[in-house]
Amino acid sequence: MSLLDRYKSVRNYTAQICAPLQREDYVVQPIVDVSPPKWHLAHTTWFWEEFVLSKFKQGYKRFHPRFAFLFNSYYNAVGERVLRLHRGNMSRPTLEEILDYRTYVDRHMEVFIQSMPDETAAIVELGINHEQQHQELLNTDIKYILGHNPLFPPYRIDFRETEINETDHSFLDMDEGIYSIGHSGKGFSFDNELVQHKVYLNSFSIRKSLITNGEFIQFMRDGGYQNSDYWLSDGWAWLKENNIDAPLYWHKIEDAWNRYSLSGLELIDPLEPVTHISYYEACAFAEWKKMRLPTEFEWEAASAHLEWGKRWEHTSSAYLPYPGFTKAVGAVGEYNGKFMVNQMVLRGGSIVTPRGHSRSTYRNFFQPNLRWQFTGIRLCKK
Amino acid sequence: MSLLDRYKSVRNYTAQICAPLQREDYVVQPIVDVSPPKWHLAHTTWFWEEFVLSKFKQGYKRFHPRFAFLFNSYYNAVGERVLRLHRGNMSRPTLEEILDYRTYVDRHMEVFIQSMPDETAAIVELGINHEQQHQELLNTDIKYILGHNPLFPPYRIDFRETEINETDHSFLDMDEGIYSIGHSGKGFSFDNELVQHKVYLNSFSIRKSLITNGEFIQFMRDGGYQNSDYWLSDGWAWLKENNIDAPLYWHKIEDAWNRYSLSGLELIDPLEPVTHISYYEACAFAEWKKMRLPTEFEWEAASAHLEWGKRWEHTSSAYLPYPGFTKAVGAVGEYNGKFMVNQMVLRGGSIVTPRGHSRSTYRNFFQPNLRWQFTGIRLCKK
Amino acid sequence: MSLLDRYKSVRNYTAQICAPLQREDYVVQPIVDVSPPKWHLAHTTWFWEEFVLSKFKQGYKRFHPRFAFLFNSYYNAVGERVLRLHRGNMSRPTLEEILDYRTYVDRHMEVFIQSMPDETAAIVELGINHEQQHQELLNTDIKYILGHNPLFPPYRIDFRETEINETDHSFLDMDEGIYSIGHSGKGFSFDNELVQHKVYLNSFSIRKSLITNGEFIQFMRDGGYQNSDYWLSDGWAWLKENNIDAPLYWHKIEDAWNRYSLSGLELIDPLEPVTHISYYEACAFAEWKKMRLPTEFEWEAASAHLEWGKRWEHTSSAYLPYPGFTKAVGAVGEYNGKFMVNQMVLRGGSIVTPRGHSRSTYRNFFQPNLRWQFTGIRLCKK
Amino acid sequence: MSLLDRYKSVRNYTAQICAPLQREDYVVQPIVDVSPPKWHLAHTTWFWEEFVLSKFKQGYKRFHPRFAFLFNSYYNAVGERVLRLHRGNMSRPTLEEILDYRTYVDRHMEVFIQSMPDETAAIVELGINHEQQHQELLNTDIKYILGHNPLFPPYRIDFRETEINETDHSFLDMDEGIYSIGHSGKGFSFDNELVQHKVYLNSFSIRKSLITNGEFIQFMRDGGYQNSDYWLSDGWAWLKENNIDAPLYWHKIEDAWNRYSLSGLELIDPLEPVTHISYYEACAFAEWKKMRLPTEFEWEAASAHLEWGKRWEHTSSAYLPYPGFTKAVGAVGEYNGKFMVNQMVLRGGSIVTPRGHSRSTYRNFFQPNLRWQFTGIRLCKK
Repeated sequence: MSLLDRYKSVRNYTAQICAPLQREDYVVQPIVDVSPPKWHLAHTTWFWEEFVLSKFKQGYKRFHPRFAFLFNSYYNAVGERVLRLHRGNMSRPTLEEILDYRTYVDRHMEVFIQSMPDETAAIVELGINHEQQHQELLNTDIKYILGHNPLFPPYRIDFRETEINETDHSFLDMDEGIYSIGHSGKGFSFDNELVQHKVYLNSFSIRKSLITNGEFIQFMRDGGYQNSDYWLSDGWAWLKENNIDAPLYWHKIEDAWNRYSLSGLELIDPLEPVTHISYYEACAFAEWKKMRLPTEFEWEAASAHLEWGKRWEHTSSAYLPYPGFTKAVGAVGEYNGKFMVNQMVLRGGSIVTPRGHSRSTYRNFFQPNLRWQFTGIRLCKK
Repeated sequence: MSLLDRYKSVRNYTAQICAPLQREDYVVQPIVDVSPPKWHLAHTTWFWEEFVLSKFKQGYKRFHPRFAFLFNSYYNAVGERVLRLHRGNMSRPTLEEILDYRTYVDRHMEVFIQSMPDETAAIVELGINHEQQHQELLNTDIKYILGHNPLFPPYRIDFRETEINETDHSFLDMDEGIYSIGHSGKGFSFDNELVQHKVYLNSFSIRKSLITNGEFIQFMRDGGYQNSDYWLSDGWAWLKENNIDAPLYWHKIEDAWNRYSLSGLELIDPLEPVTHISYYEACAFAEWKKMRLPTEFEWEAASAHLEWGKRWEHTSSAYLPYPGFTKAVGAVGEYNGKFMVNQMVLRGGSIVTPRGHSRSTYRNFFQPNLRWQFTGIRLCKK
Repeated sequence: MSLLDRYKSVRNYTAQICAPLQREDYVVQPIVDVSPPKWHLAHTTWFWEEFVLSKFKQGYKRFHPRFAFLFNSYYNAVGERVLRLHRGNMSRPTLEEILDYRTYVDRHMEVFIQSMPDETAAIVELGINHEQQHQELLNTDIKYILGHNPLFPPYRIDFRETEINETDHSFLDMDEGIYSIGHSGKGFSFDNELVQHKVYLNSFSIRKSLITNGEFIQFMRDGGYQNSDYWLSDGWAWLKENNIDAPLYWHKIEDAWNRYSLSGLELIDPLEPVTHISYYEACAFAEWKKMRLPTEFEWEAASAHLEWGKRWEHTSSAYLPYPGFTKAVGAVGEYNGKFMVNQMVLRGGSIVTPRGHSRSTYRNFFQPNLRWQFTGIRLCKK
Repeated sequence: MSLLDRYKSVRNYTAQICAPLQREDYVVQPIVDVSPPKWHLAHTTWFWEEFVLSKFKQGYKRFHPRFAFLFNSYYNAVGERVLRLHRGNMSRPTLEEILDYRTYVDRHMEVFIQSMPDETAAIVELGINHEQQHQELLNTDIKYILGHNPLFPPYRIDFRETEINETDHSFLDMDEGIYSIGHSGKGFSFDNELVQHKVYLNSFSIRKSLITNGEFIQFMRDGGYQNSDYWLSDGWAWLKENNIDAPLYWHKIEDAWNRYSLSGLELIDPLEPVTHISYYEACAFAEWKKMRLPTEFEWEAASAHLEWGKRWEHTSSAYLPYPGFTKAVGAVGEYNGKFMVNQMVLRGGSIVTPRGHSRSTYRNFFQPNLRWQFTGIRLCKK
């Protein structure tokens, strides 16, 4: 597919994700981590305007003088911005104005891509990947918005969060030795996947299936949320402060566990992979199960043999720079590097990761208490 | 006007206030004190359903089984409710559904009023007054929502917050003696205006005009916001914690003071009454001016001689029960009495108080730090 | 008694209150309202140095250049000060140094008083009353420090918090009419008791006895802490946030209510007056009892006929200036006036109020949630 | 030295550290991370009582039934405990009672050690190392208590925080390859140093000297605290929220930088190693210097060639389990493992680390914002 076609296709898919929404759903921000869909639509558009059109397209006139201020997410280098926690207070610009903004930028981008200089291909590629990341966030943020509404409205009644259940609980054995970790540099990757380097691993065994709802219910029945022995100290404090006693979106209704999914409130299927689990919960479960999470290096070494892509899989690795990591100069350099503290790495991809976006070297990362992503658990023995 | 006509007229006016809004404006709640317009539309409708239709109209079927839960504001006696601070997270029900709710309830109310028993007139009267209170809040909340949007969109470009400027700065002298305070009991009043009782007042002098923007700017130039001597201890702490150095909605742009009004961002007119002033600021200004705020009793005693109704006027009286005050039985008893602590009384009315809603015995009340209402300052000597 | 003798006697009594303490008890500040005893010893001494010696005693040299900074409590006019919430972090100066400070200042004060000019008598009188206020606080703060220690050490095993139990539950009837309220101006009073003025009161009946522990237990058994109907809205929020379900210092041990008193942990006597009650609790109790708290004016009007002085008695009056109230010029003007918001008036005195300190016009005041003072409840009918 | 002599010597050294303190210094807890010295004295004693005497000494009678509750630090497995943030509110037990407690436990321990079974040697060894860790904390906590007192009292005027200045700024080159990391298992180590395992390292260069005050002042002069480019996102938020613009204990006095050291307030020596630096500051400095922090593995691989032990050296490694790490069963298992999230590893030792306590495999760990330990910076190139 040509870059132009890929651009069009990605931009179009963003709009498609929003199609089932009511206008009011575009506006709200129930917690700081969840952005209003309206904001995602504008921010991804701003990215093109800020890093491509206003830099490389001669004579480009910005759509609106204040939009850079409104829709910058976290790039300190390109000036002041609306605080993340106030995104949900902005009723204006309206959805209509933002859709006009998208059309305006798309028109300019489509012309630009057709005759752009070679050196801009990398930033366009980054923009496509950036927009795909926000497509995943759109899905998870919409789920949070609807799933925390007291009326529990479905997003799309035909949405299936699980396509195939987990059945093969056997383990894959991996040998001790030196493994090559990180992206080769051919084709697109984020800077945090670089530089490819050697890592020495002990032998280990990793399970082929993800942990299921049924297994997690066993943990709960065995007092998993009540026994501090299983928990990291910070995890136990988090659980106590937030009265956590089940995965996110789970509701006990007339003695049966239900969960809100994008198709609405449903009884839990014990064979589906458990989802919306924080790192703290994943660690506690592993401790209870007398196993452990893989490191991100073990995960990557084994990935060719695993069916991954259903849930973002927790690893026991903190999000840190690889040897030889360097930040790009300027605002794009703020993309990844400055978040390399206090977060844990997740590997793989999820049911709402855009097709083709992830790869075995991809490093996702979140704070250990967060649960609104489609996260899951895979365990190691030894 | 018949009760039915008054009902229709009030309900219609609520819709009229919202007419200039965009759909997105109906949803947001930038601070806990400001409710989304969508919520006001639903809550005022719920009041009729809860306290009139479901109690007195035989066979009435509620529009939606969950709406009582969603749109109860603070009546503990009628069951659980959505926390006030989460109103802005509820994208559903949509505006359209809420307008349907209004139509449904109006249809039933209009039938009901035409043949209702005499003993329900009081609760219908209360409902009308309740909706008028929310009309004022709609105006102030809309102002907050738009006035805190970085684009400063006007509400209605023809809206005049001040009709006549303040010019007669002379004082009215009132004699020492016993005054009758509170509502006589004839015609409608809120329970907090009862029982009429005697109050002994010393002689005092009260200014005929409100404090103007020009006078307030003098206070600011004289270091009013920098000198702790003028401030109550709690006021000084509030100022320091929130970096307060001007009235709400004031912005210094190129060395000139502007303010956001419902018609947009405008240069300040020194002859208009200063507005959006907290009790703390009103006290500091009075201290600087070597005068004082009136008590609510002084205000009421002098009210027949004053041109009031432009701004809610701060008094130095705490909001407390009058002698002989009793709460109504049941949820309606939660209307006023349970707020009688930690608030100060304001008297009069404002440019956005519905015509005919207020009277000289009316007691409005807010916490001393709040500023989003159309408040103003009138001073006493002696 | 001569002023010199009164000075000596008051200063000596402060030391006497501290006599049963261990050195460690002087240092801690478990909550922001409770100051370390060491701080009280120093702050009362600083008052003499700041407002008397350094102003009126020629050639007086301060004991230590930094002590004014360390031991100023809230007087903005005399320069910066250690934040109130950090008093408990100051291990230095040591108790010994503070006792030296007291001796030094006493030596100078005793010389000064013997030959002081007439116009300084008022400030010396104020200093004596100021130190007496801190004597009461020393008692209540020591109770808080020891009563919140997990070992519950007694302060003095022979301390009796109640000398006579409540027995006469009859009511005193007071006539409607004009009463004179406030201090006559003869003899010492605080500025907040001035100016004497007329208040019109309806007829009312006030109970001769305070509410007892036994009566309060009835309220508790009747679900008083579980029923929002009885509570002010802010009171209910306070109760929920702090999990309040009994008066301060009460502990249920093997199904019996105990309370920590200054003589240690003891079974509760149902005939003693209930103590350590917040305004919120007092209001809820009154509501449950279908009675009400007196206003501070009713209390004062009836005071000659009541046996008061056992507990600080809650009134339904907010702490506000009397007609004609004026603040003194300078730092002494910060004594009372700047606290006249968000607090309620208490009248009478308590078991730990120094003898002769209070009077029937005395106005004590606290925030409505506070409970560490020896407060109690007296009710009115009608 | 025999185990008994080592026990005596360590216990004695704890007392020696406290010798210069005033009684009041033993009580306070200015921030949650800093414990009162009194608490350290008791907690280290409780460790012996809880994990040795009450488990292994037949007929041992605890000194006081409530002390386990009072002086447990974080071991959930041995029952409830006083919340860490309330340690500074406990005036009782007094210092004297705690010294009696120490004497009582020492008496029993000294008898016990002389005839103890072999299998208890490990827990005694752990207790000795545990007490040494608290000796370091005693030093850093005392520094915080005195260094945040407005009088800046010295701890010991002859205390030298720096024995030798930093002069050799050359770099040590290390080869690419497999290195053995972690403790061999011979002799004492903490569980977090196990299991020894292979790590593959790229070649790197590490500086022989620590970063000096002089170098750090250059960073400050170059706007290091004002430029978000140098900072991790969380670090920048921390800096903004806490108004950080210099290392902890630094004070600008008449245009010269001073710092509080254990010998008092002194002018800064540019050749001394910069100290009391958070991980965030260390990262920002490295970014500014266009270098980086070593990983803990690089540090350990190079350690034989470095003069370490002056300051705890920040590494870029998160505190995570080594391959094969297992927690001990029971309360002792809570020693390290449950803290393995949200913390960064520091290596080496500091001027207040007890002699012989640390080693090249030792892993210290703190949250990235903390500064009250004697931390420093060593950088890598490449």
